[in-house]
Amino acid sequence: MANPSLLILAGDGIGPEVMAEVRKVIDWFGTRGLAFDVTEDLVGGAAYDAHGTPLTDATMDKAQSVDAVLLGAVGGPKYDVLDFSVKPERGLLRLRKEMDLYANLRPAQCFDALADFSSLKRDVVAGLDIVIVRELTSGIYFGEPRGIIEEGNERVGINTQRYTESEIERVARSAFELAMRRGRKLCSMEKANVMESGVLWREVVTEVGRDYPEVALSHMYADAGAMQLCRWPKQFDVIVTDNLFGDLLSDAAAMLTGSLGMLPSASLGAPMANGRPKALYEPVHGSAPDIAGTGKANPIACILSFAMALRYSFDMGAEADRVEAAVEAVLADGLRTADLLGEDGVQPVTTSEMGDAIVAKL
Amino acid sequence: MANPSLLILAGDGIGPEVMAEVRKVIDWFGTRGLAFDVTEDLVGGAAYDAHGTPLTDATMDKAQSVDAVLLGAVGGPKYDVLDFSVKPERGLLRLRKEMDLYANLRPAQCFDALADFSSLKRDVVAGLDIVIVRELTSGIYFGEPRGIIEEGNERVGINTQRYTESEIERVARSAFELAMRRGRKLCSMEKANVMESGVLWREVVTEVGRDYPEVALSHMYADAGAMQLCRWPKQFDVIVTDNLFGDLLSDAAAMLTGSLGMLPSASLGAPMANGRPKALYEPVHGSAPDIAGTGKANPIACILSFAMALRYSFDMGAEADRVEAAVEAVLADGLRTADLLGEDGVQPVTTSEMGDAIVAKL
Ligand SMILES: CC(C)[C@H](C(=O)O)[C@@H](O)C(=O)O
Ligand SMILES: CC(C)[C@H](C(=O)O)[C@@H](O)C(=O)O
Repeated sequence: MANPSLLILAGDGIGPEVMAEVRKVIDWFGTRGLAFDVTEDLVGGAAYDAHGTPLTDATMDKAQSVDAVLLGAVGGPKYDVLDFSVKPERGLLRLRKEMDLYANLRPAQCFDALADFSSLKRDVVAGLDIVIVRELTSGIYFGEPRGIIEEGNERVGINTQRYTESEIERVARSAFELAMRRGRKLCSMEKANVMESGVLWREVVTEVGRDYPEVALSHMYADAGAMQLCRWPKQFDVIVTDNLFGDLLSDAAAMLTGSLGMLPSASLGAPMANGRPKALYEPVHGSAPDIAGTGKANPIACILSFAMALRYSFDMGAEADRVEAAVEAVLADGLRTADLLGEDGVQPVTTSEMGDAIVAKL
Repeated sequence: MANPSLLILAGDGIGPEVMAEVRKVIDWFGTRGLAFDVTEDLVGGAAYDAHGTPLTDATMDKAQSVDAVLLGAVGGPKYDVLDFSVKPERGLLRLRKEMDLYANLRPAQCFDALADFSSLKRDVVAGLDIVIVRELTSGIYFGEPRGIIEEGNERVGINTQRYTESEIERVARSAFELAMRRGRKLCSMEKANVMESGVLWREVVTEVGRDYPEVALSHMYADAGAMQLCRWPKQFDVIVTDNLFGDLLSDAAAMLTGSLGMLPSASLGAPMANGRPKALYEPVHGSAPDIAGTGKANPIACILSFAMALRYSFDMGAEADRVEAAVEAVLADGLRTADLLGEDGVQPVTTSEMGDAIVAKL
């Protein structure tokens, strides 16, 4: 049987640095009889610098043909001046859209050793373990019409939120399936009191819920959801929401944990011919251009994203557990990258030292 | 000269209870030579129950003709089954739209006596005093086309985000003016990396900023903004953002302070013939139907909303200070409504006792 194939798109900022540490983990598995066929390519600003586009068609084709894509991060102030159509983010958005990765799983988990890094009180976040399922291929990110037009004698900026029943249904189903494997509690968030797309969202999620009678389904307006995430996040198990709300809510939830540099994500689509889902894995953190090249980046979110790939794309739960255990072990040993300082007398390790330590624990 | 005129729309849930306490404050001023002409009317579910619409044309006309509107809160589970077009929220949204109240000022302030109620650590929130200026009459709340349509053999939910240059300009100007009277720091939030309406937003805010060279202007993506509000809210002074982002971000910010039951808001439009701005004042909290009628509601947010009316509509800064001082005095005395419990040995006071105590301090 052919080796599982991976496309690595390290991207911009700290992307390449954290991805280098993931390579060490991949190589470790390679020397133990579990080889991956790895290809690397460019995305985001890096692709723009080389090719004048944040994602070439050739890279897009590769992404479509591999078993899973690992992405670092895209964007940076250097590219702020670029036209909207070639901004680094467009590369990532094209991948999500053309691979049809409709279910973005964003765990917000508080690592016990790190609970004190949260701006929230320890008891509010310690032990927190929730997942936000964000719709990723539709909504206002992709709806037409869009653009900046002239009207009268001024410009008008337009974007369209658009959700079909089937788009809502499939992401709702992913969320219910996940809830079944977890605490069987699902909260759906929208603004059905203000937006018709939210009314449809609530209706369809409720219908899908009839197929999952064991899951306790609730609904919350997204603004109340933002409040409740800040107040008592442990009331949630799985949250399902649209692309734009998911963007804000999952970032807020991630920050609350105090473990931002630790949080992976998986973006999953429909099963391919080989039964594996289309999939892209990436850390929740951004490209952090301010610390790029300084050895301060935390590679753990990216390494845990690879662990998610092992679990969701390759059905290698034991191997994923092994990576996660290695991460917990280095944390328990007190190893900290620069983003996790604050404890007395702790000296930071570099990005690369953290990667090495995790491989040593494997 | 005629007395200043107020229209009170108490609305649903705890709205009438908290408004009853505001009446006591208004009456206190009345007995001291500062009489207001007060009219009361219905909005939201209460208006629907009486008239089959969440806001009658007659009430709308009154709102247009008074100096200021005071609103309690709208909505409740009882009305969840109603058609979108007559939901309680439509009454509030019609007021905002037809009065053209484009600048919604939402202070997120942490009352020192209450800092421990925050889910955030004391040092993160103590002394916090920021204002979110939310655009309130445009964006996805009002853009056309909107609705649920049939397409192929399924339904599609559609909403449109739409911002004209002049809509962005006027709210930006309000925010810069406010920043000039405060810490001279303004952060504008959008998703210019994903939405063209955000690109235009950033451009126009930047242009308006040329008229305010003393204000330090920065831009942040709204998801990063949500994160930063949770991490270290004191980095901000004034934030300006669109209707939908403002809805989520201001609610999150309010919750962070731990003082949700304490936070007022002002929604301001263009100056009327008498020089006063069109204005509606309302607490940030909702209608809290679960505690309606139990005496647990905190009237302070609504009373402080009236204080904002004194300040912004009637240029009565000294009177506003007086109300705010009375509130601080009762808090310093240790008086707490049921939402503010947790300190050892504190017995809650009722909504009405809190109102009386504040009047006594006046
Ligand atoms: C980089 C950007 C396009 C992206 C988004 O807005 O979805 C990011 O914020 C995310 O959450 O993955
Ligand atoms: C009640 C609702 C329509 C309203 C909104 O979404 O604007 C509320 O959440 C608010 O923030 O004032």
